[in-house]
Amino acid sequence: MRIGIDVGGTNLKAGLTDGDGRLLAVERRPLDFRGAEAFAADLADMAEAVRTAAGVSRETLRSVGIGLPGAVSGGEILYTTNIPMEHVPLAELLRRRLGVPVLLGNDADCAAAGEYLRGAGRGCRDFAVVTLGTGVGAGIILDGRLRGGAASSEAGHMVTHAGGEPCPCGSRGCWEQYASAPALIRQTRAAMAAHPESLLHPLAAERGSLDGQTPFLAAQAGDETALAVCRAYVEELAAGIAGIVNLLRPEAVAVGGGVAGAPEELLLEPLRERVGAMSYARHGGRATRILRAELGNDAGVIGAALLGRVI
Amino acid sequence: MRIGIDVGGTNLKAGLTDGDGRLLAVERRPLDFRGAEAFAADLADMAEAVRTAAGVSRETLRSVGIGLPGAVSGGEILYTTNIPMEHVPLAELLRRRLGVPVLLGNDADCAAAGEYLRGAGRGCRDFAVVTLGTGVGAGIILDGRLRGGAASSEAGHMVTHAGGEPCPCGSRGCWEQYASAPALIRQTRAAMAAHPESLLHPLAAERGSLDGQTPFLAAQAGDETALAVCRAYVEELAAGIAGIVNLLRPEAVAVGGGVAGAPEELLLEPLRERVGAMSYARHGGRATRILRAELGNDAGVIGAALLGRVI
Repeated sequence: MRIGIDVGGTNLKAGLTDGDGRLLAVERRPLDFRGAEAFAADLADMAEAVRTAAGVSRETLRSVGIGLPGAVSGGEILYTTNIPMEHVPLAELLRRRLGVPVLLGNDADCAAAGEYLRGAGRGCRDFAVVTLGTGVGAGIILDGRLRGGAASSEAGHMVTHAGGEPCPCGSRGCWEQYASAPALIRQTRAAMAAHPESLLHPLAAERGSLDGQTPFLAAQAGDETALAVCRAYVEELAAGIAGIVNLLRPEAVAVGGGVAGAPEELLLEPLRERVGAMSYARHGGRATRILRAELGNDAGVIGAALLGRVI
Repeated sequence: MRIGIDVGGTNLKAGLTDGDGRLLAVERRPLDFRGAEAFAADLADMAEAVRTAAGVSRETLRSVGIGLPGAVSGGEILYTTNIPMEHVPLAELLRRRLGVPVLLGNDADCAAAGEYLRGAGRGCRDFAVVTLGTGVGAGIILDGRLRGGAASSEAGHMVTHAGGEPCPCGSRGCWEQYASAPALIRQTRAAMAAHPESLLHPLAAERGSLDGQTPFLAAQAGDETALAVCRAYVEELAAGIAGIVNLLRPEAVAVGGGVAGAPEELLLEPLRERVGAMSYARHGGRATRILRAELGNDAGVIGAALLGRVI
């Protein structure tokens, strides 16, 4: 039995899995950060709670993995985004409390590990998960090993538009500025401003707000403006994925995150076609499959629990 | 003792190395392609010639590696560019003649292996060589293993200008269209057309032609137009290297090929600064060193000879 805990900016989610990564119990709690020691105590308490909820004895617990929004190195948190921690030896703090080995990983890397072992990446050795959310993240597994720690990917900052939009990272033209959910919303707003006749207007009003699903819903209803937005967005997404494909030729790339829930015919199908056209696979080059991530929000917890398999 | 043979579009170069990859003898011959069987016989003959030239007995020869312009899979050539071979079991054809194990690799991958083991990448585990020539190629070594065969990189086709210049590969905005030697020459010609007063004109006339060194020579002589060309070219080069860095965070990236011979202060120094600015290395992220490749034209032969160490 293994426990994975996915640490979000506002919530914690712990899961207990069997050796194959099947989720047997889940616990959710709001994050109440009061310093690193108290944080470690809260995580230990949650691990105990999910173990007890699953009716599993302490002796059968093999390890605990923690997925964190930030960077880790070995058992140390280098920093977390949205939680004020720097250089915290979290693995050791937790191991003292739980008496089992504790592994740390970046949250996108844990999600990739989960999808690799239990989701869309099953059977692959070379695999990447691209997560479309507030930013664009990727977790990469090559030859069965996670590119984690100091080698953890920042795929959202690959340059797909050299000299293009400024990015808060200090560079310009980062993929994330064109392919994240906020980027899609910006692109949709721009199209709405140019097309007052578009169905996007009443649809956004009806839904109370504009989000990453709105252009896909309007396109499904036949709105030409929305369809053009979706096509242009797929093109931006394809540019970055083609970069990953041409550089690494993984067997598969899975797309996850909120935007990935869009209808197959508007996102995954055209994305496959465009990435295929942008991939340099001369006869003999490996063709990379483009898939939808399968585990949704469970990927991070499952991957954290199974981190030891890929590092 | 090991032998490496670098197969170019018009020439063959064989080298005999000791176990540490030191070149003990080298043979060069023009390529005279008369079919796959004759090609294998010529390579075997060259291997024998370089072995004899070095005064080394047949018994001490451990393996032969062949670097090829194209794609390989295991011991099979999938295809070669500029040489008409497809699906040729070259390793077996050669092994029959030489009686030792034969390994095949892509030429850019062999060059990366050579630099990794004996050149700029010594001491790294995660390393890439970017070669600037007719195209832009890269060989990638991660955790000490070459990304070769079906996983061989086509880094020149990463998209750095989404929707940009068409590329013969069928895509648009490929890095190669902006960072290869022919791209640099095109950029130089465009600047010359706009600036008839530039030193580039008399310099190109004096040298008889315009090549990838001309803008650097003119910039060194203080020509502002040439300096602007060099700066813009570094920016294009940096965009792709930053993609490799942000995706993979290797310990070092070495730049090789003809253009890489440019003066340090006009190429490597500004390149380091620009890649640094485009790299998303928050506190804790690994800083990738940008180096010049060290082995020049020997990298391919040495890497071919030592292929077995990285695959």
